[in-house]
Amino acid sequence: MSKVTIRDVAKAAGVSPSTVSRAFSMPGRVSPETTKRIFQVADELGYHGVPIESRPSVGYKGLVAIIVPDMTNQFFTDIIRSVQRECANHGVGLLVSESRESASMERVAFDRAVYYADGVVLASSRMPDSMIRKCAQVKPVVVTNRIIRGVPCVITDVAPGMRQAVRHLKELGFGRVTYLDGPAHSWSAGMCWNALTRACGEEGMKIKRQWPGVPTVEGGFQAAKEYLKNPTGAVIAYNDLMAVGFLSAMRQSGYECPRDFSVIGIDDDMAGRLAVPPLTTIHRSTRLVGAQAAQTLLQRFSSGGADTSVQSTPTRLVVRESTAPLAV
Amino acid sequence: MSKVTIRDVAKAAGVSPSTVSRAFSMPGRVSPETTKRIFQVADELGYHGVPIESRPSVGYKGLVAIIVPDMTNQFFTDIIRSVQRECANHGVGLLVSESRESASMERVAFDRAVYYADGVVLASSRMPDSMIRKCAQVKPVVVTNRIIRGVPCVITDVAPGMRQAVRHLKELGFGRVTYLDGPAHSWSAGMCWNALTRACGEEGMKIKRQWPGVPTVEGGFQAAKEYLKNPTGAVIAYNDLMAVGFLSAMRQSGYECPRDFSVIGIDDDMAGRLAVPPLTTIHRSTRLVGAQAAQTLLQRFSSGGADTSVQSTPTRLVVRESTAPLAV
Repeated sequence: MSKVTIRDVAKAAGVSPSTVSRAFSMPGRVSPETTKRIFQVADELGYHGVPIESRPSVGYKGLVAIIVPDMTNQFFTDIIRSVQRECANHGVGLLVSESRESASMERVAFDRAVYYADGVVLASSRMPDSMIRKCAQVKPVVVTNRIIRGVPCVITDVAPGMRQAVRHLKELGFGRVTYLDGPAHSWSAGMCWNALTRACGEEGMKIKRQWPGVPTVEGGFQAAKEYLKNPTGAVIAYNDLMAVGFLSAMRQSGYECPRDFSVIGIDDDMAGRLAVPPLTTIHRSTRLVGAQAAQTLLQRFSSGGADTSVQSTPTRLVVRESTAPLAV
Repeated sequence: MSKVTIRDVAKAAGVSPSTVSRAFSMPGRVSPETTKRIFQVADELGYHGVPIESRPSVGYKGLVAIIVPDMTNQFFTDIIRSVQRECANHGVGLLVSESRESASMERVAFDRAVYYADGVVLASSRMPDSMIRKCAQVKPVVVTNRIIRGVPCVITDVAPGMRQAVRHLKELGFGRVTYLDGPAHSWSAGMCWNALTRACGEEGMKIKRQWPGVPTVEGGFQAAKEYLKNPTGAVIAYNDLMAVGFLSAMRQSGYECPRDFSVIGIDDDMAGRLAVPPLTTIHRSTRLVGAQAAQTLLQRFSSGGADTSVQSTPTRLVVRESTAPLAV
């Protein structure tokens, strides 16, 4: 059995041997598409680069750090993943930390990370505005899911999706909606509530707010008890996890969705897609948020410019089976 | 409104001011429990450490890198999270990379990471054994979910859980089981298959193997078509995601679980807990795997010893509602 060489890989991938060599040794010097093709061919042929001992160690072109509040939440692991992909495509490494929802721990994680990192993504930061601005004076910072004046931010604009959700419920015949709200100190929860009240004002829909809430399946499960004291027929939850927990608790209490009630989530994550019935939800693109946050940081590395704009990614309603006309 | 000082935090947390100061500035010098209490009190009082500009930057006590095949799979994000927590408790930072299931990309990610990292966790590595051994000569390496001679490994021992699963099906009256297997080149898929054939041999249960399979919800969904050509009544899937996709496809074809068939997953992840009906599954503790992998690396940093043992974490069957006696 003859050994697979760099020439075999180059031929099969339709590139020159030096391009194959660069893909293995020079981060970011070969386009992501070509790199992908070369690696695919190399994997198939069983070629994995020159022997480790004969190559000099190659570092990244830079390091980015990301700090998230909770790594069990798919919303944040999706952002990490998309920041990681963007960084990897540019030959940049990623340091990951979790603040466990604590501003103090986030502050400490930032202090550690900037020692190595050229820039930091703060995802749904729990720190006060003033502290985030100070952090941004130390190293380039991009904030996601929150707006801080003077610091570049990437958010999802929940307003369009919320408007579609409220209109959808109105068209189904609902005149009242219960909102299962999120945590008390969450910037994003405040934005959702603002968007909902505006949309309900426009459509003449009454709102009942259950606030504050725990943004987990368990939190949604608990919320069902309170809801049943004065049910409105239609429910919008702060995220898909809460909506799924709510569905599950209602089923256990003998209520069937969408026959007895309609429920809409926010996020469009796996939990909602797997729910029974599949969840109608407001889609937010965490992939776009992560990619834009990473791109903003990477651009600052190369240009050095102080971009302080707010980039906003759109939302839209995804109608599935958890919403249906009001039974008469 | 008077400013909160370090003394206020110390008093409320029942520690000395110097302990509060250390918790904010010296990674790993204060126990995780005390740090947690101090940060909780600090968050409540609104104290977040001394002003950033007046402190020297503090790095980590070391850096660990982890490379996983797929960051969309909760199995791997759970391992990342638990490695991160263990590292953070010891003041060590974490670099995260994804190989996107490619041995070549994993090799490149390793080369980049070792430039910075003091050690590397290879989770479910897709690289050949010989290459992993070479990597381990460059820097300390710990492999999870796979056994490589001469390299420290942390695996879950699926055998006990598999034995319980097969016995459970036998007690319910099944004499045949279909196994929805995983990817062709997965070490872990090979181990599951071995454990299953052994358990079925012991219990006199017949097996039908659908192989290879795609370890995702979509993969399980597709597997239902093949299954229905020759249904066995009982099914074990390579992971919970496949089991949930299988459930969903069967429901769409008019079959009700557990009335018409029983299904068991492997992993015990959120997808299975949220499934309708909730999934009977073989629990694997990714938390333990991640923690042990991190501890093994951190011990090697301090002792320098060359531990090459295989650490094995147990599995067990968790019975929920997707399995029931065979209808006569």
